[in-house]
Amino acid sequence: MTNNLPGTVYLVGAGPGAPDLLTLRAARLLESADIVFHDALVHPDTIALATRAEKVAVGKRYGKHSAAQLFINKRLVDAAQKHQTVVRLKGGDPMLFGRAQEEIDALLEAGIAVEVVPGITAALAASADLGISLTRRGISRSVAFATPRVGREEQPSDWAASLMNADTGVLYMAAHESKEIAAQLIARGKPAQTPVMVVESASLDGLRHVTTLEALKRDGLPQLTGPALLMLGEVYREALNAAQDQQALAAALKRRC
Amino acid sequence: MTNNLPGTVYLVGAGPGAPDLLTLRAARLLESADIVFHDALVHPDTIALATRAEKVAVGKRYGKHSAAQLFINKRLVDAAQKHQTVVRLKGGDPMLFGRAQEEIDALLEAGIAVEVVPGITAALAASADLGISLTRRGISRSVAFATPRVGREEQPSDWAASLMNADTGVLYMAAHESKEIAAQLIARGKPAQTPVMVVESASLDGLRHVTTLEALKRDGLPQLTGPALLMLGEVYREALNAAQDQQALAAALKRRC
Repeated sequence: MTNNLPGTVYLVGAGPGAPDLLTLRAARLLESADIVFHDALVHPDTIALATRAEKVAVGKRYGKHSAAQLFINKRLVDAAQKHQTVVRLKGGDPMLFGRAQEEIDALLEAGIAVEVVPGITAALAASADLGISLTRRGISRSVAFATPRVGREEQPSDWAASLMNADTGVLYMAAHESKEIAAQLIARGKPAQTPVMVVESASLDGLRHVTTLEALKRDGLPQLTGPALLMLGEVYREALNAAQDQQALAAALKRRC
Repeated sequence: MTNNLPGTVYLVGAGPGAPDLLTLRAARLLESADIVFHDALVHPDTIALATRAEKVAVGKRYGKHSAAQLFINKRLVDAAQKHQTVVRLKGGDPMLFGRAQEEIDALLEAGIAVEVVPGITAALAASADLGISLTRRGISRSVAFATPRVGREEQPSDWAASLMNADTGVLYMAAHESKEIAAQLIARGKPAQTPVMVVESASLDGLRHVTTLEALKRDGLPQLTGPALLMLGEVYREALNAAQDQQALAAALKRRC
């Protein structure tokens, strides 16, 4: 075996959660990896595919940035000086809300080869779980993905504008601010009766809940343990109607008992 | 083996093109499939994983609809009467521009169980190819995906609005109308110097070309053989600058020779 150091760093999408939603390429890379740096949320069975590798958790939750990111960048550069195959395993896809660019730039600046392996992003897994397509003939032909930062707007981040102008909208990392998000979208002119689908831990067990912007603004969400998406638009109207019919039926039955 | 018919139809995303960007779940389903209905664009090596299955091409290109779709729906329903495991294999992800909903609805109406297996969508594979993230701290925190139909606008399809209001925009199935798309985005107020990245056959060999909306409006694109994405936004500015520097250098060298 040749030993050409520095090695290559692979930024690999672990997918939404379910271990078998990993790609074949990612599985093969994990099997041959010398060292794996993984996010906190990656499934243990996925990490376990890296039988040869030293495993390092670099758990970093949304909101804590800078110092943690610089430290991860440095560890990746250092690891490539010692190992042929370094895997940086990220939940979902690295290039969509995965903060990959900072790691790519740091590695290229240090002269380290980088390859990115895409992963299934949560919105696609959630749509598969629900059996409801993000796009639909005559109803939706545009989809916006955004991360809101309510009350902490900064350039170029008018997250609400992108959702106002797309047929279907998906908000990542948004569940803990759901009341404020719903209030802001209604204030911007989104109809209060817009259907909202909440999907916690897409591809795994978690809350699947359909509601409206109005109800979300009023009631918010229960405390969730997994990462959650807020998905909104007319593609969820049928699911909302069915849930409302069921609620009405349950209420009618209750009155009769 | 129990033989409980009707069987289940799995709507499976084949991913962007490279056979090893299939998910583990999709590979396992193909291996056990009795019959596979696949799009024209799915890679032959992916279809070949279905060693046991009868393979049926149901190639359908963008633009030809209705009759072809009704025929596919009927064939899926019929197949589930005869087979335990029916796979409908679609390029990319079924739930994002994959026309999955019509097939799901037809199957559920016929009392057939349906499961959806997500796939890597082209925009994520293209971002991996380029090493440029769709989102980036301080530059992009919203991404819109749309399919344009220039001059054939229909409700609710203001595709341009979703792109005007997202930091990064990705247009699927857009390359053959690139001049008109660029003209329309500029007319709507998108800066003419907005960087545009063209990616043909993401995850496989194809054109990778960075330009501006202005140049795209003027020159269009060469004839492409594979499916192509138009990706636009400030995340591609560095790549555009580097390409323009290289062009300027080449021109200067040419003048000196």
